[in-house]
Amino acid sequence: MSGLPVTGLAVRRPPRGPAELVDGFRGLGVATVHEAQGCSGLLDAAIRPVFPSPPVAGSAVTVSVPPGDNWMLHVAVELCGAGDVVVVAPTTPCDAGYFGELLATAMQARGVRGLVIDSGCRDVAELRAMGFPVWARSVCAAGTVKETLGSVNVPVVCAGQLVTAGDIVVADDDGVVIVSRDAAAAVLAAARARADREVVSRGRYAAGELSLDLLGMRERLAAKGLVYVDELPGAPS
Amino acid sequence: MSGLPVTGLAVRRPPRGPAELVDGFRGLGVATVHEAQGCSGLLDAAIRPVFPSPPVAGSAVTVSVPPGDNWMLHVAVELCGAGDVVVVAPTTPCDAGYFGELLATAMQARGVRGLVIDSGCRDVAELRAMGFPVWARSVCAAGTVKETLGSVNVPVVCAGQLVTAGDIVVADDDGVVIVSRDAAAAVLAAARARADREVVSRGRYAAGELSLDLLGMRERLAAKGLVYVDELPGAPS
Amino acid sequence: MSGLPVTGLAVRRPPRGPAELVDGFRGLGVATVHEAQGCSGLLDAAIRPVFPSPPVAGSAVTVSVPPGDNWMLHVAVELCGAGDVVVVAPTTPCDAGYFGELLATAMQARGVRGLVIDSGCRDVAELRAMGFPVWARSVCAAGTVKETLGSVNVPVVCAGQLVTAGDIVVADDDGVVIVSRDAAAAVLAAARARADREVVSRGRYAAGELSLDLLGMRERLAAKGLVYVDELPGAPS
Amino acid sequence: MSGLPVTGLAVRRPPRGPAELVDGFRGLGVATVHEAQGCSGLLDAAIRPVFPSPPVAGSAVTVSVPPGDNWMLHVAVELCGAGDVVVVAPTTPCDAGYFGELLATAMQARGVRGLVIDSGCRDVAELRAMGFPVWARSVCAAGTVKETLGSVNVPVVCAGQLVTAGDIVVADDDGVVIVSRDAAAAVLAAARARADREVVSRGRYAAGELSLDLLGMRERLAAKGLVYVDELPGAPS
Amino acid sequence: MSGLPVTGLAVRRPPRGPAELVDGFRGLGVATVHEAQGCSGLLDAAIRPVFPSPPVAGSAVTVSVPPGDNWMLHVAVELCGAGDVVVVAPTTPCDAGYFGELLATAMQARGVRGLVIDSGCRDVAELRAMGFPVWARSVCAAGTVKETLGSVNVPVVCAGQLVTAGDIVVADDDGVVIVSRDAAAAVLAAARARADREVVSRGRYAAGELSLDLLGMRERLAAKGLVYVDELPGAPS
Amino acid sequence: MSGLPVTGLAVRRPPRGPAELVDGFRGLGVATVHEAQGCSGLLDAAIRPVFPSPPVAGSAVTVSVPPGDNWMLHVAVELCGAGDVVVVAPTTPCDAGYFGELLATAMQARGVRGLVIDSGCRDVAELRAMGFPVWARSVCAAGTVKETLGSVNVPVVCAGQLVTAGDIVVADDDGVVIVSRDAAAAVLAAARARADREVVSRGRYAAGELSLDLLGMRERLAAKGLVYVDELPGAPS
Repeated sequence: MSGLPVTGLAVRRPPRGPAELVDGFRGLGVATVHEAQGCSGLLDAAIRPVFPSPPVAGSAVTVSVPPGDNWMLHVAVELCGAGDVVVVAPTTPCDAGYFGELLATAMQARGVRGLVIDSGCRDVAELRAMGFPVWARSVCAAGTVKETLGSVNVPVVCAGQLVTAGDIVVADDDGVVIVSRDAAAAVLAAARARADREVVSRGRYAAGELSLDLLGMRERLAAKGLVYVDELPGAPS
Repeated sequence: MSGLPVTGLAVRRPPRGPAELVDGFRGLGVATVHEAQGCSGLLDAAIRPVFPSPPVAGSAVTVSVPPGDNWMLHVAVELCGAGDVVVVAPTTPCDAGYFGELLATAMQARGVRGLVIDSGCRDVAELRAMGFPVWARSVCAAGTVKETLGSVNVPVVCAGQLVTAGDIVVADDDGVVIVSRDAAAAVLAAARARADREVVSRGRYAAGELSLDLLGMRERLAAKGLVYVDELPGAPS
Repeated sequence: MSGLPVTGLAVRRPPRGPAELVDGFRGLGVATVHEAQGCSGLLDAAIRPVFPSPPVAGSAVTVSVPPGDNWMLHVAVELCGAGDVVVVAPTTPCDAGYFGELLATAMQARGVRGLVIDSGCRDVAELRAMGFPVWARSVCAAGTVKETLGSVNVPVVCAGQLVTAGDIVVADDDGVVIVSRDAAAAVLAAARARADREVVSRGRYAAGELSLDLLGMRERLAAKGLVYVDELPGAPS
Repeated sequence: MSGLPVTGLAVRRPPRGPAELVDGFRGLGVATVHEAQGCSGLLDAAIRPVFPSPPVAGSAVTVSVPPGDNWMLHVAVELCGAGDVVVVAPTTPCDAGYFGELLATAMQARGVRGLVIDSGCRDVAELRAMGFPVWARSVCAAGTVKETLGSVNVPVVCAGQLVTAGDIVVADDDGVVIVSRDAAAAVLAAARARADREVVSRGRYAAGELSLDLLGMRERLAAKGLVYVDELPGAPS
Repeated sequence: MSGLPVTGLAVRRPPRGPAELVDGFRGLGVATVHEAQGCSGLLDAAIRPVFPSPPVAGSAVTVSVPPGDNWMLHVAVELCGAGDVVVVAPTTPCDAGYFGELLATAMQARGVRGLVIDSGCRDVAELRAMGFPVWARSVCAAGTVKETLGSVNVPVVCAGQLVTAGDIVVADDDGVVIVSRDAAAAVLAAARARADREVVSRGRYAAGELSLDLLGMRERLAAKGLVYVDELPGAPS
Repeated sequence: MSGLPVTGLAVRRPPRGPAELVDGFRGLGVATVHEAQGCSGLLDAAIRPVFPSPPVAGSAVTVSVPPGDNWMLHVAVELCGAGDVVVVAPTTPCDAGYFGELLATAMQARGVRGLVIDSGCRDVAELRAMGFPVWARSVCAAGTVKETLGSVNVPVVCAGQLVTAGDIVVADDDGVVIVSRDAAAAVLAAARARADREVVSRGRYAAGELSLDLLGMRERLAAKGLVYVDELPGAPS
């Protein structure tokens, strides 16, 4: 399983989850999905939306790229399609501007929903105008070369998480979480259940109820030794 | 005075400044207040608004939390009220997502004006939609546990500043400054005086007058040795 | 050539490029200009727009400032005029809030188009409301003093690039690039040619054509050894 | 309690703990002391020894300094003495080289045991040769000015912790921890007890015993659901 | 393949490479091994030796740990043995002091050669005295709790690389590289060949020969357009 | 003067200062030289010695390198000689391991005294054993390619400072400072004068005299308003 990523390999037909499963994640927050799958799969918090965008869910097309070289992104364009989210991982940490308006135009034409990159992107104003969402580590106007091979649709490590083509990528203003294809149905159900519970909680909190009561915390807090006082001891009155 | 923060203590009735005093800070910028109190009280510049918000001023409810544990925020909800700003300080540096939509709903229901945290927050899109402003060090979808006690309304060190419950918290797009309750009236007067002077200066600068003249800087610059030349010596003509 | 920057010198009449040349850069992206001049002149990617702004191009007025001291910005106001962009470089790394609303008002009154600073700025809300764009390393409410001389319109190193008064500064959401005055005409022509080519490419990509074909990459990829497979070898079917 | 630090105040006779109490901490590790006082008082991990030094324990002389100004360190020299450790906190984050060989010579002549600074130091080679230990955030050759007042022996926030003159400072290769004077006797006893237990544990671990058995962890691990298997399920044999 | 790491699983008999193969890497530098396997497998450069140590090569025992919880390290002690290097990866970025003297004593007693952790370690002075080498992201005196399960000998992502139990870990003053067990024999041969070539090159360079000649670079440099001049054009003579 | 660095140019005979002048800086500290030339020329404090080394002074051979490409270092070897210090500046920020043992062997054979690089180096153990000192931003085992031209002995910006071939490079444990060739004689004299004064001061401080008295600070402190008190007002007695 180690030794990844492979170099010089382009996989044409990666697995993809059923569209209705993938799309089911779209209304759910990254934080909710992360907890629903046991607090796993979250990309490093340094990966941020380049501009505020609606949330996205899609099937991962993975791209392993050498430092400062975006050639494989051009290869990836041909291999991605409607409902995909492209996930780009440099083999060595690097903050160049791998991705910009032209590649976004090509991907958007094929139905790609967004891109996640553990490096830099550029043409921010144009991407915002196009409505093509990007989650990246940095913004950098310096471009890249096209000299060295990487791979498409092989497993990659992106921002601290292993991502396999066909995994589900869920991204919003809070960050990006990866759901494995095998676990997707179960995670979706658990996430929906959490979201439903949160709707109820929100209503009760908005009405002034306290989580101390709703979640029955008072006894456990007392058992742990929490002491309530009216005023801070020793404070000047 | 050291050895703070105390653990396992929840103070029910922290001191609060008179509302008219606290509210008086709302129209004043953080930079102005910081200078008006002798360049003190400013939180580390890493504490940034999570999204652009109107400025806020309120009375501090302080929360000391263990790393990765937000239990005391639930305790704090009951102890805060209209006009408060909640100030959260982990006892060890930690960037987890301590605070999100549900706690914000509960606090907003009680009249809390915003939250300042020397750690992470999540549910950014929902917080923006609710109009509940947060100043934080990071955005992180990873949540926290509820296992270990901290304290509410004890003195804390938040982002490099000592904050005591009842201090006035002033926050805007430039950051966050803390004003001690005892000094608040004097600082407010000084800040207003500065703001008034700035209104005058702004008008004169907008009309093309120079600070060199308005502030009488020319003599002091000359005395320090500033030399004016028409062209850079040695530059090609 | 070394030993820069000089201290205590204010140059009144720095060279400026012809307005039509400078203004020609306004519609061109920083990434495009950077590549058109051979991938040089780009400021460190840590220099970011303080808020989203329209792109700017102008003639550099350079300001060398001591750490934590913005006195020379007041000197610079008198020496800058319509079409200029002020470029501020501390002699020692420093993140204080050198620049705010009052200086912006004074510069805007003289026709200055924006400011680039390898340090901090403040009064973010006011600058946004005024429409005076700033590219900075940080936002910091803490101000500066006026005690020590620097220089105006001497060569400075700003965010890793040498900037000479009269250089052309091009800034947008992607960052800031410096074009030397001597090279400006040639760079402008090259950048326009790139931009024109990109318009064509964008149209063809939007229509679904592939860069693999348009740029003739397939042969070179094959020569480098890229292998296409339908499925990842060893993956569970 | 807020509004600290006071500016322009030099306190001549700060409280100091009994020498035998202070000296008792010298053989104890920072990690041990930190745990013995309930996981509190630890300075930010960015504060590191500038070169490897023997551990130090002493009575805090606190110095509040403006950014880039070390004047108050000269004032502090006169106010510190045998057994002290000087703790320096800038009022604004700043990495200048506040402290070097000459001040170290003056402090060493008075019996000061070391210095902790939430900023930069310089003359590293000379300090190492003198054997005067320093814990700092950075090394920086750029010096400071002597223009603005701060204070000596007022409470300061240093690297995230409140420090009061007379607190006990314990520093070693792991970092720096502050013990409040009032709690010192109890913390010392608890730290010694921990250290004694660790001596026993170390001997048993060195002999091959397992903490799983010594600390009785096996049952709790099983209760939490830990499953032992001989081989990773699904791994190729 | 995704969804890793599994939680709550302890694998007793991970695969291990033949000792003579693992030990063969000991004399080879991390940089050499990294290049010999096609520039892959290198951990993030933020992972540094905590103190200068002799180079280490061993078989990976992997430990997946929750943030701020080192319980699984105690479980790992029982499952590791002579010739192993323990590789620790938190599931969420975290800089606590997971590892110190007592665990090192227990591991050293079982023949473990060192530890690599994408987080913090403590007891630096004691580890140095014991001669137990550690590669870590940080030094932090703050300890961890023992509340939550992780796993031992499941695949983990550590500092940006996937590591499987039984992979070979090579670590020296330059950093840490992972070699997959399947590729180890081939990588070892390639690395030895590189090292042999470097011995020859070193001798010739030490004798004053130039790589320009030895590696035949002059023609390719000229073809790319390198121009030699005696003096910088335009420089003052 | 802008538009630097030039690409594809190798200057064979850069200016060099007289050896006795260059060598005169060797005994002087970087901090002293920095102040003697008016607090200018200091490289960013992120440039640190890779291992503790004796101080170095030499004549700069400058190398401008593309990101991730060390080809020009091979070109530089031929163009450097006895008494030189090589200064390497990537045109884009990049932390690859540009420099290691083989290049060091070749440079040492030609009498080069050390290397300063605003990027990464590797083979740390070997460099230490050879006694070839390096000041770098990082240590990174990942190597570079040899595909793209840069230049040798053209002006570069290295770690925030403009460096011209023939400038004097002074480096020690505190960092690196650049002295322009034209100013070298005057700076050397000023630095020696400072060093001589420091010898006197050190002796008097070691004997217990106070800088407050030696430097006559007491009156100015009083004039600024410094107040001495015996105890902190309001502190518990």
